[in-house]
Amino acid sequence: MRDIFTAELSALGEDLAAMSRLVETAVASAGTALLTADLALAEEVILDDHTIDSMERDLDERCVRLIAQQQPVAHDLRVIVSGLRMSASLERMGDLARHIAEIARMRFPGTVVPPELLQTITRMHEASVQVSQQVTNVIETRDLELAAAIEANDDLLDELHASTFVATATLIVTAQQAVDITLLARFYERFGDHAVSIARRVVYLVTGEAPADRGSTI
Amino acid sequence: MRDIFTAELSALGEDLAAMSRLVETAVASAGTALLTADLALAEEVILDDHTIDSMERDLDERCVRLIAQQQPVAHDLRVIVSGLRMSASLERMGDLARHIAEIARMRFPGTVVPPELLQTITRMHEASVQVSQQVTNVIETRDLELAAAIEANDDLLDELHASTFVATATLIVTAQQAVDITLLARFYERFGDHAVSIARRVVYLVTGEAPADRGSTI
Repeated sequence: MRDIFTAELSALGEDLAAMSRLVETAVASAGTALLTADLALAEEVILDDHTIDSMERDLDERCVRLIAQQQPVAHDLRVIVSGLRMSASLERMGDLARHIAEIARMRFPGTVVPPELLQTITRMHEASVQVSQQVTNVIETRDLELAAAIEANDDLLDELHASTFVATATLIVTAQQAVDITLLARFYERFGDHAVSIARRVVYLVTGEAPADRGSTI
Repeated sequence: MRDIFTAELSALGEDLAAMSRLVETAVASAGTALLTADLALAEEVILDDHTIDSMERDLDERCVRLIAQQQPVAHDLRVIVSGLRMSASLERMGDLARHIAEIARMRFPGTVVPPELLQTITRMHEASVQVSQQVTNVIETRDLELAAAIEANDDLLDELHASTFVATATLIVTAQQAVDITLLARFYERFGDHAVSIARRVVYLVTGEAPADRGSTI
């Protein structure tokens, strides 16, 4: 009985990691679609988001069933409750990638990012790709140092986000561009927040302690 | 033993409703601070968000403790898992209210909303106040018709959100105003999403069935 439960907990972890790899792909592809005005790739990200959504529902149902059937306590219960939380964050990261792809699709065949902001948005894209890879790694390894590295990448995304406010207000961009860039920068910044949230769940999982909250930015 | 558990479940529901009332106040005050450039009120919303955050942590710990101690199944387990989910949505609604207050504070003594967009943002404010009151009611009453009314208000927020894209792109607004309005409209639109998420949790709680997903908008 215990063996089956252990196997189910382990399967839960593997499926979270699989879900996180899909999110990685979505984040990378959405940014590429955005920066290269690739309509087919944008469509792909939008369609594939359904898979991420249904993985979340499936994981959730299994978590609730495991609680009901196995009545876990202590560390096992933490694993399951954290699973619920992490799948919700991953699902939101998938939504954000879809939103970025939707903006790319909406402006096609035009490009969304004006030349003046290309460097900043490219850096946000790169940081979000890195952070989503780190999320998969931290789910797989439960490495606390990696959890800390995710917070550093989130700080970078916050800084870049803040810099877009200044840039859109001072550079010569149209109102349309200002709207697009504001949304994009917000979506990228939220990737970082969700990644940090997942990293903290892993810390909680390993140590049983919730890390101190640093607050959230706009 | 069962009596104590029933009392604890009931206290959980009451505390969720209390948390929801704090969110109601935050939503109403943030909008008023925004529309009347009221710095003191904006500061109040920003400070009070800590209370909402700590209520979420407290509710979460109690949910996990109840699962561990009482090993609930079936409806009781649904109540607790839904409690975890609803407190997370309420906490996010509190964050969004704080973000609106932060924008009001940032632009003080100026106003954020240009005259051309005052009507739209006022309508978003009113719809979000109404939706946050409905959220408290649905948590208290578990009324399925009310849950449906929340979806209607969310549709209105989605429409208003879409109309701000057109307005900022066509009306004569500065890039700064475009950034502010884009963020504000996004925050208001997210209120609706979280309210719908809570309404669906209540439907799940009452019926044991998850309502069909309508997808989410940008």
